[in-house]
Amino acid sequence: MADVVKKPIKITETILRDAHQSLIATRMTTEQMLPMVEKLDKVGYHSVECWGGATFDASLRFLKEDPWERLRKFRDGFKNTKLQMLFRGQNILGYRPYADDVVEYFVQKSIANGIDIIRIFDCLNDLRNLQTAVKAANKEKGHAQVALSYTLGDAYTLDYWVEMAKKVEDMGADSICIKDMAGLLLPYTATELVTALKEAVDIPIQLHTHYTSGVASMTYLKAVEAGVDVIDTAMSPFALGTSQPATEVMVETFKGTPYDTGFDQKLLAEIADYFRPIRDEALDSGLLNPKNLGVNIKTLLYQVPGGMLSNLTSQLKEQHAEDKFYDVLEEVPRVRKDLGEPPLVTPSSQIVGTQAVFNVIMGERYKMVTKETKDVLSGKYGVTVKPFDKEVQKKCIGDTEVITCRPADLIQPELDTLRGEMAQWSEQEEDVLSYALFPQVATDFFKYREAQQTKVDPKEADTKNGAYPV
Amino acid sequence: MADVVKKPIKITETILRDAHQSLIATRMTTEQMLPMVEKLDKVGYHSVECWGGATFDASLRFLKEDPWERLRKFRDGFKNTKLQMLFRGQNILGYRPYADDVVEYFVQKSIANGIDIIRIFDCLNDLRNLQTAVKAANKEKGHAQVALSYTLGDAYTLDYWVEMAKKVEDMGADSICIKDMAGLLLPYTATELVTALKEAVDIPIQLHTHYTSGVASMTYLKAVEAGVDVIDTAMSPFALGTSQPATEVMVETFKGTPYDTGFDQKLLAEIADYFRPIRDEALDSGLLNPKNLGVNIKTLLYQVPGGMLSNLTSQLKEQHAEDKFYDVLEEVPRVRKDLGEPPLVTPSSQIVGTQAVFNVIMGERYKMVTKETKDVLSGKYGVTVKPFDKEVQKKCIGDTEVITCRPADLIQPELDTLRGEMAQWSEQEEDVLSYALFPQVATDFFKYREAQQTKVDPKEADTKNGAYPV
Ligand SMILES: [Co+2]
Ligand SMILES: [Co+2]
Repeated sequence: MADVVKKPIKITETILRDAHQSLIATRMTTEQMLPMVEKLDKVGYHSVECWGGATFDASLRFLKEDPWERLRKFRDGFKNTKLQMLFRGQNILGYRPYADDVVEYFVQKSIANGIDIIRIFDCLNDLRNLQTAVKAANKEKGHAQVALSYTLGDAYTLDYWVEMAKKVEDMGADSICIKDMAGLLLPYTATELVTALKEAVDIPIQLHTHYTSGVASMTYLKAVEAGVDVIDTAMSPFALGTSQPATEVMVETFKGTPYDTGFDQKLLAEIADYFRPIRDEALDSGLLNPKNLGVNIKTLLYQVPGGMLSNLTSQLKEQHAEDKFYDVLEEVPRVRKDLGEPPLVTPSSQIVGTQAVFNVIMGERYKMVTKETKDVLSGKYGVTVKPFDKEVQKKCIGDTEVITCRPADLIQPELDTLRGEMAQWSEQEEDVLSYALFPQVATDFFKYREAQQTKVDPKEADTKNGAYPV
Repeated sequence: MADVVKKPIKITETILRDAHQSLIATRMTTEQMLPMVEKLDKVGYHSVECWGGATFDASLRFLKEDPWERLRKFRDGFKNTKLQMLFRGQNILGYRPYADDVVEYFVQKSIANGIDIIRIFDCLNDLRNLQTAVKAANKEKGHAQVALSYTLGDAYTLDYWVEMAKKVEDMGADSICIKDMAGLLLPYTATELVTALKEAVDIPIQLHTHYTSGVASMTYLKAVEAGVDVIDTAMSPFALGTSQPATEVMVETFKGTPYDTGFDQKLLAEIADYFRPIRDEALDSGLLNPKNLGVNIKTLLYQVPGGMLSNLTSQLKEQHAEDKFYDVLEEVPRVRKDLGEPPLVTPSSQIVGTQAVFNVIMGERYKMVTKETKDVLSGKYGVTVKPFDKEVQKKCIGDTEVITCRPADLIQPELDTLRGEMAQWSEQEEDVLSYALFPQVATDFFKYREAQQTKVDPKEADTKNGAYPV
């Protein structure tokens, strides 16, 4: 390695977002995280992914926490480290496409409250679904990272990824992430992919993968050797399985090599010592299922994300059709082809999976068609990498007009309407955004917040009622 | 990789020995293994490690199975695959050194009953403790593999390993194994080590490691690129954590590369499907502790095997001195240096660990000295890589004479005596060897076996007693 130039690999720590989202259903609380912020801030990470993804929904819904408040607390604590969030393109952190004014306002408020890097992706890799968010991040002087949803298939050649990367650079992104949510990227394929992307573009390349299929650390190793700039890892107590490779392990691997991070293993050990009891507690309570810690090679064999496999199993169980499991697994790639061969990631994974189940169970393909399948075939999710199967499209949507424009172009501005709907609950400007994403859940949270404020302020309670609430 | 010559990597499957020894206390039964023998035999493994190590003891002690019978059943089923065992040098599969006649007879009977490859190691890497077993394997036309116990320390330079490898080749071994029981071999160190060994000797080099510290799959990757001939892996349900990297994962990683194994992933998936419920059952019953599935980076930081860390914890707990844990961890490398810097593997890991605990708890080093520490310092375990600390040696054993010959030279032949002691129980020639290794446990097993034979033979029971036993 004497001929290799020194190039310390940069690391994004995921323990505050993806790691616990992937292993314990996003249930880590702000209170559990804050004691380690000071130490995490000293490590020297490129960034800490700590917000967005499912954390917003989970905070409001299960933890009864204001996600904006969590973000401000992080910003207070992290003096030297960039804060990073995951952002689902036009869907923001929700499950439907939003009008541009909502997307823009969300980006503005995310950055105003402390986010430095916004990682933006789309389940179809339709860059038009990312452009509003990217431009908004540019405008707010945030770092706009575009994540390409990695998948396998005829259409996904090296040329495809190179072309996509060039387009991403041209659209004004500050960096590119290869987002391998299913752990499909094999080590030697990573060599080819990273080499090609590094040659094609000038902006940094980051790699995000999951350990699900068991190759993740090797994939990072080969990617780093091929020149990737940043990798995503998780502190060991919440690493491996459906989460990322362990931070300490990658740090130790590159120690003394040209890729040496320079991180202090003793400091990392202190952080791990703090999170390990939280892991053990989650194992004891069943929140962390040890089955998620193993290797699931089937994600590679069927090129299907781990989460989708377990969804299919439970859907078939409901239908008392568990014996059809392998039929469905063989139907999945066919449906995927019919629908233009999209990556399988939320929500396309659910759409393809459910349709495959229907096709098998009904004994006739597309006899029963979900609304979402129809929407995909009508272009409402955007453009797919390959054309739809014409016959399937006709059978499913008949002569319905197909959208070819950017889907959000058809959505009217909606911020004012949303503000009107939730005005009575508003305590901060950001509240309208919580409401926009999860109207019912946010409203429940606002009610809870109000109740808590009455209850937990003893002075107020005392003055008004002459009694302390319990 | 166009310039790399095709060289399919060979694989030793460990699921029938090390994998379940490392994860579920060696409790897999012959009955659980046999249904998969036919499929395992079709995979194309270089060998299947299926015997020796702790399996002999566990079969007799916990499973009430005759280990020799298990071996013969394997031999019946594996028509095309070499059977491999792990052998602790002069200690065979037991915990004390045996006379040469016992070692020779054990090797003879192992091969006669079906073993093809005997992996022989010594905790001090004192090759004199291996020579009887190696010669016996040569004589019986078995494959004698010498395993070097891998460790870190001043003495363990690249030159040391190269010199050792040359000596191993000269002593008549058919191959060399780097036995990294603690998972200390880092990926880029593996590159250097394997490259050096491949240059130094002509016999094949095999690499054995454990996932404990989280680097194992990357270490295999770099070792394979550096030209290692064989790697040890375990089918995914019993892979990772304190076990080996997953077979399917390494197979998939090298697919389409010059190292392609050519294995059939569908066949491997069928085998994994069989073992997965056994894993799940072990998780449910607590036999498989999910804590053993995580990454334990401390094994790297303190260069101490995972098992030793948990032993230290429980020893300190017994002494109500848990607060001394880090003092003991710092004492361990000092004791190791005093004792000639041996690898830490059974039994040296226990000897060093226990002495470190005493040194810390007594508040004075070597105020209390175990019999085993004295034996090491008297040369009874063999020669260490570095000289003992003279002052420590004097304090511990005073003027006691120090052995410098091969320890087994002082042990008289003992096979005839052993035969005399257990004659009443003998049903097969191999029984004397079971008795030699574990006199009490084997005797208990012989009694159990006799009782079973009386019970399960209804005809005999009927004739003699006029009644069926329950
Ligand atoms: Co992820
Ligand atoms: Co082992």
